[in-house]
Amino acid sequence: MTFVALVPAGGAGTRLWPLSRRDHPKFLLDLAGTGRTLIQQTVDRLAPRSDAILIVTGAPHAEEVIAQTGLSARDVLIEPSGRNSMPAIALGAALARERYGHDVVVGSFAADHVIADESAFGAALDEAHAAAERGYVVTIGITPTHAATGFGYIRAGAHAVPCDETTSPHDGAARAVLEFKEKPGADVARGYLETGGYFWNAGMFVARADVLLDHLKRLHPELHAGIVRIAAAYDTEERDAVLASQWEGLESIAIDHAIAEPVAAEGGVAVVPAAPTLGWDDLGDVAALRPYLSAPVDDAASLTIESPGATVIDRRTAQDKPLPYVVTLGIRDAVVLLTDDAVLLTTLDQAQRVGEVPPRLKDVGREDLR
Amino acid sequence: MTFVALVPAGGAGTRLWPLSRRDHPKFLLDLAGTGRTLIQQTVDRLAPRSDAILIVTGAPHAEEVIAQTGLSARDVLIEPSGRNSMPAIALGAALARERYGHDVVVGSFAADHVIADESAFGAALDEAHAAAERGYVVTIGITPTHAATGFGYIRAGAHAVPCDETTSPHDGAARAVLEFKEKPGADVARGYLETGGYFWNAGMFVARADVLLDHLKRLHPELHAGIVRIAAAYDTEERDAVLASQWEGLESIAIDHAIAEPVAAEGGVAVVPAAPTLGWDDLGDVAALRPYLSAPVDDAASLTIESPGATVIDRRTAQDKPLPYVVTLGIRDAVVLLTDDAVLLTTLDQAQRVGEVPPRLKDVGREDLR
Repeated sequence: MTFVALVPAGGAGTRLWPLSRRDHPKFLLDLAGTGRTLIQQTVDRLAPRSDAILIVTGAPHAEEVIAQTGLSARDVLIEPSGRNSMPAIALGAALARERYGHDVVVGSFAADHVIADESAFGAALDEAHAAAERGYVVTIGITPTHAATGFGYIRAGAHAVPCDETTSPHDGAARAVLEFKEKPGADVARGYLETGGYFWNAGMFVARADVLLDHLKRLHPELHAGIVRIAAAYDTEERDAVLASQWEGLESIAIDHAIAEPVAAEGGVAVVPAAPTLGWDDLGDVAALRPYLSAPVDDAASLTIESPGATVIDRRTAQDKPLPYVVTLGIRDAVVLLTDDAVLLTTLDQAQRVGEVPPRLKDVGREDLR
Repeated sequence: MTFVALVPAGGAGTRLWPLSRRDHPKFLLDLAGTGRTLIQQTVDRLAPRSDAILIVTGAPHAEEVIAQTGLSARDVLIEPSGRNSMPAIALGAALARERYGHDVVVGSFAADHVIADESAFGAALDEAHAAAERGYVVTIGITPTHAATGFGYIRAGAHAVPCDETTSPHDGAARAVLEFKEKPGADVARGYLETGGYFWNAGMFVARADVLLDHLKRLHPELHAGIVRIAAAYDTEERDAVLASQWEGLESIAIDHAIAEPVAAEGGVAVVPAAPTLGWDDLGDVAALRPYLSAPVDDAASLTIESPGATVIDRRTAQDKPLPYVVTLGIRDAVVLLTDDAVLLTTLDQAQRVGEVPPRLKDVGREDLR
């Protein structure tokens, strides 16, 4: 079947401030230092495996997204405001159905994650596509490497779908999802790893567009109706008028809550466990960036002394005068992020809290730095 | 007797880098935020209590010292190189004797310490002067406020000098020094405070110039001979030639080792315990600066979040563009020192180690920032 990849590109990535900003969100940055931005890498990965790619982003980023990805403006959908992931994905699915017909399969993928092993990704996607054709909403599950507390977990059933209780599934076969689990505490996460059958939820969902939209119609009929109206008008002169009349009234909700969790409870969600080699990472905070830095410390204009585990990322640009030299003394696991207009000092174990900074900047009248 | 105050102004104050630099040493800075630099405050304190003030400093700082203090160039002695405190003080004493005669009493005071209670200082100085007239080398002792490990200690005898075993000394009377103690460990320091009779050595020495120079002649005859030659030529056209021929050969040694310790062992040193109200501080590191800051955090261009005890000192100057905004997140007792060309990140408990930074800067080719 025709496969259309959907890429909602909305989040700023506030936990990576000051590298990421509202106006320069994480997905537009080359955080992994590969020479390609995260959304470029996402498109690079999806292009050979899909018939079309639709990116859904905000108006402020559309021009840059088009410039970075080389997609046509027609394939970069502009949401008038962020309404969480469900409206964006539903709009992509509905528009894919308008453009490519009722048999289309869609898959939604974050714009700002990294994947090391593309062939493992391709294999999981093929398996997910096959299960989607059979009517499942399919998520690609990440094999946990540690008892992470920053991710949601997927609890998989023991058997392949469609349910065949007589045989164990082959490695990587789609299995029923029994339950989605919210981010757990450390003890609970360790229990998941000991028990087995738990995977990280990376927000990758594959389904027939019809299946996805039928679930939406049943569970969130008003949201569905609005999306269908917008999709029908999207490739016409009515687009702006319909968007203006419909979008702000749409329910703001994540696909997890809107579809994945309730449909899993009905037995309609499957998970494809990706191979452990996949090398998925959401680059959620500075701690996650460390393995991708060529050196943990940029030493052109900085020096660390007696600061084991220190990370210094210097993204300042020398302009008319030399950059201030930065010395870190005696701070274990120091994190120092340097940009031209803002500097963050913290430690690795506080990295998850960096998202608290942008709201505080507004409080102190430095909205310009968000 | 005529009293001449000597102020050796040599040390850079490397533990206050990057506020202090080799080219902008601590004594030339207004670290306490009073509007007067440390050497200005020192001169302000000594001027009403002395007949003359002689500052001994290096050639790179002489012009700035004259500009800041308003002293005549004749009273700012230039040492061709730093030879520790003994040669500087001996030169001042010998020149004071040349200019003011054999009865002169000299007192040596650091250029970069603060004293809160000037009348307590005056009372201690009067007592020291009286004991100096009787032939003692007299040090002004600081009553400890805590078991500091960063200062040397003075162990005082129970009786006033000259020795009168029948009466206890009045408060603040000069007492014999039994011993100078090097910087102790924490346990030893606590023991000193419990025992009593121990004072911090603030490096303030008062003596008749003749007495001081006679001790030097006896204990370090070559150093004495060189100093006497230089002092004799200092106010003549021969100064530069004699300095050039003599100075580099002088022994580099502190007055503590050269005179105070050996003469104390002979019973020739007295200590005047200053009143506990004196409020002396050597501003030895950033931790010592904190009580003098109007606010512990300069918040014009910085923000601390969940960083109790943080100290942010922002001495950057906005020039053609706004300063980078500095956010500190989750670092207890963070210390952030910001200057135009260098930034230091550390914590209060590491502040004593900041002196390690300037030598490391040389190692990494940033000698310019020392």
